[in-house]
Amino acid sequence: MSKGITSRAEDYSQWYNDLILKGALADYSAVRGCMVIKPYGYALWENMRDQLDRMFKETGHQNAYFPLFVPKSLFEAEEKNAEGFAKECAVVTHYRLKADANNKGKLIVDPEAKLEEELVVRPTSEAIIWNTYKDWIQSYRDLPILVNQWANVVRWEMRTRLFLRTAEFLWQEGHTAHSTKEEAIEETEKMLDVYATFAEQYMALPVIRGVKTPSERFAGAEDTYCIEALMQDGKALQAGTSHFLGQNFAKAFDVKFLNKENKLEYVWATSWGVSTRLIGALVMAHSDDDGLILPPRIAPLQVVIVPIYKGDEQKQQIDAKVKEIMQQLKANGISVKYDDNDNNRPGWKFAEYELKGVPVRIAIGARDLQNNVAEVARRDTKEKQSVSLDGIANHIKQLLEDIQQNLYKKALAYREEHTTRADSWEEFEKLLDEKGGFVSAHWDGTAETEEAIKEKTKATIRCIPLNNEKEEGKCILTGKPSSQRVLFARAY
Amino acid sequence: MSKGITSRAEDYSQWYNDLILKGALADYSAVRGCMVIKPYGYALWENMRDQLDRMFKETGHQNAYFPLFVPKSLFEAEEKNAEGFAKECAVVTHYRLKADANNKGKLIVDPEAKLEEELVVRPTSEAIIWNTYKDWIQSYRDLPILVNQWANVVRWEMRTRLFLRTAEFLWQEGHTAHSTKEEAIEETEKMLDVYATFAEQYMALPVIRGVKTPSERFAGAEDTYCIEALMQDGKALQAGTSHFLGQNFAKAFDVKFLNKENKLEYVWATSWGVSTRLIGALVMAHSDDDGLILPPRIAPLQVVIVPIYKGDEQKQQIDAKVKEIMQQLKANGISVKYDDNDNNRPGWKFAEYELKGVPVRIAIGARDLQNNVAEVARRDTKEKQSVSLDGIANHIKQLLEDIQQNLYKKALAYREEHTTRADSWEEFEKLLDEKGGFVSAHWDGTAETEEAIKEKTKATIRCIPLNNEKEEGKCILTGKPSSQRVLFARAY
Repeated sequence: MSKGITSRAEDYSQWYNDLILKGALADYSAVRGCMVIKPYGYALWENMRDQLDRMFKETGHQNAYFPLFVPKSLFEAEEKNAEGFAKECAVVTHYRLKADANNKGKLIVDPEAKLEEELVVRPTSEAIIWNTYKDWIQSYRDLPILVNQWANVVRWEMRTRLFLRTAEFLWQEGHTAHSTKEEAIEETEKMLDVYATFAEQYMALPVIRGVKTPSERFAGAEDTYCIEALMQDGKALQAGTSHFLGQNFAKAFDVKFLNKENKLEYVWATSWGVSTRLIGALVMAHSDDDGLILPPRIAPLQVVIVPIYKGDEQKQQIDAKVKEIMQQLKANGISVKYDDNDNNRPGWKFAEYELKGVPVRIAIGARDLQNNVAEVARRDTKEKQSVSLDGIANHIKQLLEDIQQNLYKKALAYREEHTTRADSWEEFEKLLDEKGGFVSAHWDGTAETEEAIKEKTKATIRCIPLNNEKEEGKCILTGKPSSQRVLFARAY
Repeated sequence: MSKGITSRAEDYSQWYNDLILKGALADYSAVRGCMVIKPYGYALWENMRDQLDRMFKETGHQNAYFPLFVPKSLFEAEEKNAEGFAKECAVVTHYRLKADANNKGKLIVDPEAKLEEELVVRPTSEAIIWNTYKDWIQSYRDLPILVNQWANVVRWEMRTRLFLRTAEFLWQEGHTAHSTKEEAIEETEKMLDVYATFAEQYMALPVIRGVKTPSERFAGAEDTYCIEALMQDGKALQAGTSHFLGQNFAKAFDVKFLNKENKLEYVWATSWGVSTRLIGALVMAHSDDDGLILPPRIAPLQVVIVPIYKGDEQKQQIDAKVKEIMQQLKANGISVKYDDNDNNRPGWKFAEYELKGVPVRIAIGARDLQNNVAEVARRDTKEKQSVSLDGIANHIKQLLEDIQQNLYKKALAYREEHTTRADSWEEFEKLLDEKGGFVSAHWDGTAETEEAIKEKTKATIRCIPLNNEKEEGKCILTGKPSSQRVLFARAY
């Protein structure tokens, strides 16, 4: 097959789109800025979602579901949140279509079915959820509330990109309510840790845990924690956020509880979310010019077996052996597909599964059978090895684990190579332009300087890493005193 | 605790609402016609969804995700479908809010952000999906497409009821594409069978498999198959539908494929769906005046253990034993909770778990411990039994299975008692008014008669059962000749 994938060197952005489209993860749709998630992409999302869901449940959370629509009067109640999202809200104004009297077979919006109050399609659900929590919370005994929602949200973005930035996307949003500030902060940090663990152990994606500067905070938050990852083009990507919301939403929606001393207090809140954007991060972090490279722990398909044969007799012998191998692999919890479709040649299949990022390919021919071996190829390094069929399941199991670890190490090495200190403005600009990656530099702590740096370089402060070393220094732009370095990068 | 549940005899409809609200399955929301699915209700939905999802995958289907919005021009392309849903469409007309210059802190819809083309919030996804399939299908080799989507949809209903009829609801919608009519019909029937099997084996809900009359078909379908269940008030409830769509959507969206003879043909289609409405059916089919009764196979919690003790010493002894029992139950795949919260008395807890419909309750006190027994109560019959702690896990496992079967048998017996033949109009009306349930009667096959019967009695033809016996007779209303009986009922 001719893959027709643009190389990274040629056009990184086109390479990414080629992988998403030709790798059958997603497709453009007829709706501006919205995508179709195709079965292969959705299977990947299911694996990610299911693992996150297990981790949420293990940390005591339950799922629930809140309405898609937020009445405008609720939406505007928390002013900063409303202001932050107002510019990208899809708004439902009518509840009926009717036949167009002037145009047979066509429909028009029925002007008589105008809503008294417009409904915002949720860009995030704090408003509708805190308006609900008001009814659920009376006393400290009703706290904490540890609820998560898997849902679609809509943010009307002007420039969209498959998975990375789409008008509608799928995500989860946790919304918790607590009786003390300390407990809420603990929850915020705990969930950041869940995200980081998931990214590192399942997506093989090393992340920096940090907090955002005030100007980069979620609208309505007191503090936004984040995990930041580095892509192969040296740009950063925010992979998940966890917000300490203080009492802002409790005050906006008047949610109070009677504490143990029988006094009324406002409730403390957190929210946290990751989205289908993670799939974009996954693709950009690991893949190569031949296609996707998916980490075994979340790959929709871990192993593909391709027979190489001439004639029915050889095919039957291979089939029989493959049946045994598949049973052994499945018994080890490994997902496997036997592709014996005779419309396509082995070489075509090899290229196809490389494109799809299947971690391990087993090819087995008549001579292999005689020698009791198979050719095992790993997608990440493309190494091939002749492996004895005795105990092959154990070999594959270990190999999948090796691939998982290798992907992580490779991404980590890349990030370490591309995290550089800058101590002068010239160095700072040069690093951003020529090397990319994270630039660790001093900043005077003001929003003005942050904005000025962004305007000059397009780089933003990705985060102030957690457990950041204190170090006296001078701001990279203004020369004013600074007590710690922060991480700058150009970002998705 | 005082449950405050209205009895069925007093007010069936209020009983239902009480169970949903006090049983913590769902709550009303601030959005007209939309509900909040609470954690307990959502856990129930998750169990139902996960089982259905397994059954879809076992029958060869994959999940995907399509946009929430349908551009009006696509929505109106299949005229019957568009006409059927036009009256209940939420419509997005604008993509931005802005500060209200006259009202500080308030927002208004920005008139400058009017969409060129309005977007319908999907009431069902045939239009957006078939517009996508057009790009996916060229040849017979691209068929069949067997895709399912788990999603939220919006139908602006005037009268809403928790779970049974809400403006937004969660559902799955399968959308398949085939190269022959026969294969599409086979798929339609196969998925009806999946729904029936799920309803009967997991929800313990006996259903009639049938086809709808032309006037009750899904808008845009050639044939609508359905499963119909009977509720305890004698009203029927449509629990799932599977549609043979013929080539209607292929023609509307110009989806053709090259067949093996290299000729272009329109693609054949099916769609099929079940929704959170099933939870309403589940509640109404099995529950009683003390609360919910949930079938063990989908109950969020199968067993609760309540300790009965005085003082710490007894409590510690019970704790130790319960720990053992819980390990044994969990090892048998049984979900179990130990409620040793000392804020509530055992009697309160008993009532609470009855209300929640937990299938089995185990109470264990100090004397029980001495006798090496526990008191095991089943929710369905309320029978209590003293059970030896030796091998209690096996006992509970069997008991859960017994409860599952008993619920099904009870519902089936009710339905059989409430399925009656009527051979005269007087009898027909009397049965509907006094006994309720399904009335099996002859119908002359015309839409006019169907409508007239509906107007006179509020009963509709629920379905023509599959494998219906042929029987010559006379229409219950008009006396015209009829070749088979159909099932009438008043319905949700």
